[in-house]
This record gives sequence, structure tokens and C-alpha cells, in this order.
Amino acid sequence: MVSCGAALPLLRGDRDVLHVFDRNTSALFPRLPEGSVVLAPGEDSKNWAGAEAILSAAFDRGMARDSLFIAVGGGMVCDLTAFAASVFMRGARLRLLPTTLLAMVDASFGGKTAINFGGCKNLVGTFYPAESITLSTAFLRSLPRRELLCGLAEIVKYAMLGDAVLYEDLRKRGEGFFPPEGGLGDEAFLLDVLWRTLEVKARFVREDPEEQGPRAYLNLGHTFGHGLEAATGFGRFTHGEAVAWGMMRALRAGRRLGITGERYAQEATAFLKALGFPEKVRGVLAADILRAMEKDKKKKQGEIRFVLQRGPCDNLTQSLDPAFVAEIVEDGLECNV
Amino acid sequence: MVSCGAALPLLRGDRDVLHVFDRNTSALFPRLPEGSVVLAPGEDSKNWAGAEAILSAAFDRGMARDSLFIAVGGGMVCDLTAFAASVFMRGARLRLLPTTLLAMVDASFGGKTAINFGGCKNLVGTFYPAESITLSTAFLRSLPRRELLCGLAEIVKYAMLGDAVLYEDLRKRGEGFFPPEGGLGDEAFLLDVLWRTLEVKARFVREDPEEQGPRAYLNLGHTFGHGLEAATGFGRFTHGEAVAWGMMRALRAGRRLGITGERYAQEATAFLKALGFPEKVRGVLAADILRAMEKDKKKKQGEIRFVLQRGPCDNLTQSLDPAFVAEIVEDGLECNV
Repeated sequence: MVSCGAALPLLRGDRDVLHVFDRNTSALFPRLPEGSVVLAPGEDSKNWAGAEAILSAAFDRGMARDSLFIAVGGGMVCDLTAFAASVFMRGARLRLLPTTLLAMVDASFGGKTAINFGGCKNLVGTFYPAESITLSTAFLRSLPRRELLCGLAEIVKYAMLGDAVLYEDLRKRGEGFFPPEGGLGDEAFLLDVLWRTLEVKARFVREDPEEQGPRAYLNLGHTFGHGLEAATGFGRFTHGEAVAWGMMRALRAGRRLGITGERYAQEATAFLKALGFPEKVRGVLAADILRAMEKDKKKKQGEIRFVLQRGPCDNLTQSLDPAFVAEIVEDGLECNV
Repeated sequence: MVSCGAALPLLRGDRDVLHVFDRNTSALFPRLPEGSVVLAPGEDSKNWAGAEAILSAAFDRGMARDSLFIAVGGGMVCDLTAFAASVFMRGARLRLLPTTLLAMVDASFGGKTAINFGGCKNLVGTFYPAESITLSTAFLRSLPRRELLCGLAEIVKYAMLGDAVLYEDLRKRGEGFFPPEGGLGDEAFLLDVLWRTLEVKARFVREDPEEQGPRAYLNLGHTFGHGLEAATGFGRFTHGEAVAWGMMRALRAGRRLGITGERYAQEATAFLKALGFPEKVRGVLAADILRAMEKDKKKKQGEIRFVLQRGPCDNLTQSLDPAFVAEIVEDGLECNV
């Protein structure tokens, strides 16, 4: 069940409920429910030690299978809490209150839980859908513009993959989606866009909950993007910036292979650039990006499958020749360092 | 897919396959597939550090979602490898080669994976059925009689819960199932019993894969039994001995409440005692057993549900008054220490 709103949700304490925050999201509430877990913000908490902190708190509280884990935070808090809930007594109840735009579209609906392992993002995890998800724009009002744009990159991805009308609506709104002076701009439009984005995601996920088939399309831009994030230590680019770069790489690859229509490739690339996403990045080695891509989870029989598009909502996956992939990556660098 | 046989299975090495052993089971093979993981035997390996050893080996091998994890061992190796496979990239392929009678009936079919956490057995885990299970009596020939009886206690449990004919066949065979002088006795009969036991389990599991309903019956004797195992540090009694004791407690509780038929309660208790399982144990405090039972995974809304029987294959679950549970536990102690 997904519910949307504009007010900060009320949190109620209960012996059978465990709330998980990070230090940023805990600060949004005047009082935390008793026994809450408050994690250090950032990817460094997204590992087994973080999961252990949640599991120990649940165990100490005497929680059982029918107890409820509630995540209040961004992608890290949502993915980590969901992972802990999924393995506590082989699966307890789970509710997500994502507090960033990225987490609302990326880490809420769809059931992917994760921790990082061996220096690899999200290498360990489960499929475990939350029983309820609450989206509130109240959480978004304090986010910096760069964070909002990070989520917007994923929203554009869903539109490109599954909703041509949403894609056109977003293109028309253009770079003014979030006002340059800060804030959320048109909040009603944002809520509407959020809802339509989750509808696209729901369609892909329902058809293929465990990513054996069409759900893999949702990885558009992610193989290239994860490579860039990993090669730059996950700190320099936001996930959205990396994915936007990756989508432009996928459009370029599709264009070079004669798969992607020229007009669509140009138009989508221009739109992503207008939103402020870099088409070419600097200060990173192609070899580092390619090495990181090698470890991709989406490998099948040793080959990485890339998501490409013929046009809006016209998607395919394809294995690409490593030399060709290297060319495409190099083409996305400011200068061939 | 379950297959049964009497010969030691052949192991083939492959980049895309990771074999996991403990030092006992690795010794059964003249050569191990390259890159195999060999764990220290015993419950001390059944934790996150053990899972980490398997996940790291898989990651270093460059394995992906379509790679295969193969567990060759007892319950610890099977549960732990299955847990690691279930969370590696959100689920890789899994094959189980259980090498003890207990693991063949308890840790193979049914998809429960687990690690110990916070001093609590199997507190963390997933539901993740193996794609194939290979049972071979070749593994059982070297097991001590006490280990074989440990598995037999679970076999008797399945018969009591779901196959009255198997129950009678076992009762007729009596204490001679495994010859006192050692060895497997009638191997053809044993294979037949194994097969029928897994058929019972399959019926319960298929009806209720995630233990929301009738699968909970398979916990007959386990709430009492786990309490005894935990209170004695998991070393003094085998799992089968503890479960047999627990089943006798459940029969006693059912009898006292007028739920279990008198003849059945007497007959089943006599059969378990004839197999060598203790009806009363010594050197453990009732309070310690009761405290351990409090942490039971099968709690619902703060109450532990006990599995009781009216007669063979006639099962129910029921909450019991704590004072009554304490009496039943005390009645299972040699003297009320």
C-alpha cells in the first residue's frame, strides 16, 4: 500500500515497533519513539554492522515475526532496514517512510533490500516488499537542490522507460521543474509526478518481481552509472548524476549501433543536459570505470547485459562487445586521461 | 528436485560454482574442487562471519546471480550456505548435498536458511528453496549411532504429524531401526523411509511455504526442545534428543488438557523411549529452559503457540498458560532442581 501526502507523518511508539533513522532524519522529529535506532548517515552504515545494530535492537526488544520495522530515511536507511526486517526471524513486517526524492522512487516500492559488501554497492540483499510505504513531500522541503535533481534523474528514467506522456510533461516543464532559487516549486505537480512514476515502476515490478526479465529494463543507465560511481568512490557524483550520465551513454551506444532513433537520442540527451546533468565527466579513468562495471550484478553467463532503447518506452537488453563499451565510456569523459 | 542414491556424488569444479564444506565433509573427498570453502565444523561457524567467508569467496571468484552455490555438509553447512546464496546479489542458485540424516530431513527440503544471532539459534535467515537436493546414504555410513538417532527423532516427528502408515511401520521396526552394533541396517528401508518423510514435509511446505499456517505443525516438540538445547548450551543433547524430549512434553501437555488421546500419548512416548530418547533429563533448571523458550520465533502477539496433537496426523496449535508450561517442563526433569 502506497500513500502520499504533504504533512510530516506521526510516529507512534510501541513495544512491537522499531523505528530506524539516521542522524539527519531523527533531527526532523521533536521526540523519537522509545528504543529507536539512529544510524550515522551515509553509505558507511550500509553494511552488516549497520544491519546488526538494527537486528540487536529488535532482539533486545523481544520482537517477533509479527513485529514491525519502520525505516525513516533515505535510500541507505530504507535499504538497510528492509534488509534487516527481511532476515529477522526469516521476515518481519516492514514499513518505509522514504525521506529523499531518490529513496521515494528508487528505494521504496519494489522490494529490493541491500547492504554493501566487499567494497561493492548492494552486493548482498533480498527481495522483500514493504507492506506499506508513506510518501510525504514534507520531508523534501529541506533537501538541497542537488539532492532533488538526483531523484529527478530516476524519475526521468522511469518516464523514458514506461510513460511517454510523463516524459513529454517533464520535457515541457524542463529545467524549471525545481526552481533554481531552491524549494520544491509546484508541489501538486511533484506529487502527481511521484505517483505516475511509481505507477510505471509498479508495472515493471509486478510483471517480474525478481528481475528475471523486463524488470531489468529499470537498470537503464545503471551499469555505466554504477561504474562511474564506483570508480569515483561513490562521493563525487550523486546517484542521479551518475545514472543520467549512464543513460546518455546508453543513448549513445544505441545510436552508434543504429538501434536508438536519432531524434529521440538527441532530444533525451539535450533534456538531461538542460536539467544540469553532465554528458562528459573529468578526472576519472575509463579503465577504472570499466573494471568496476565488470563486477556488475546483472551479469548472465559471464556477460553484462546493457539496457538500450529504440525510442521512448521501447526497451531491449543486449550484450555489448567490451571494446565497444570501452569506446562508449571514453566518449563520456571530458578528455581521455 | 530431490534425488536419492547410495553412492557418493561426483563433484565437478567450475568457475561458476562454489562448493562449501566443513572439515569433516571435505575429508570424505580425495580432491576438492578448486576454490572450495572449508569451514570449521560446528555451530560456531553458523554466524555472519561464516556467511561472510562464503560471500567473499563467491565475490572473489567473480560469481553472479546465475552462479551455483553447493553445500556439502550437515545442517550447519546447509543452512549457512543457503543463507549466503539467498542474499548474494539477492539470490543465486543453490544445491544441497546434506551429509547427516538430520540435515537430510530437517535442513534440505523446505527452504529455511539460517544463521545464529545474539546467542539465539537461527534468529536470522530467509526462505529460499534449493533448486536441487541430492540425498545419498553413502554419507551416512560413517555416522555414529547417536547422530543417526538424532535424525530418526525428526523422522518420527514427520510420521506422527502426517503419515500414520509410516508411523506404524517405524513403530513395528522399533529400536532395531539402526542396529545397536552400528551401521545403517536395512539401507533400502532407510531410503524408503527418507523418501516418505520428505513427502510428508513437502505436503506441509507446499501448502504454506512461509510458515503462516499449517507448516507451523512441523515445530512439534521444537519449542520445548529448543528451550532445552539453549538452556544446556547446545552441546549436551543432540537436536533430535531435545526434540524427542519436546514431543514427549507436548504429548504430556495435550494429555493433561484432555486434548491428546491417552492410548496415543502412551504409545508414542513408549516408542520414543524405546528408541533411547530420555523422557526426563537432569542437571538443568526449569527456569533456564523457560527463559530460553520466551525468545521463541514462533511467538505471535507476544504469545508462544504450542503444537499439540489429538492423535496421529491430527494436529493443532494452542497458546498455553505460562504456569502450566512451567509444570510441564518441570515434569520433564529428573528431579526438580
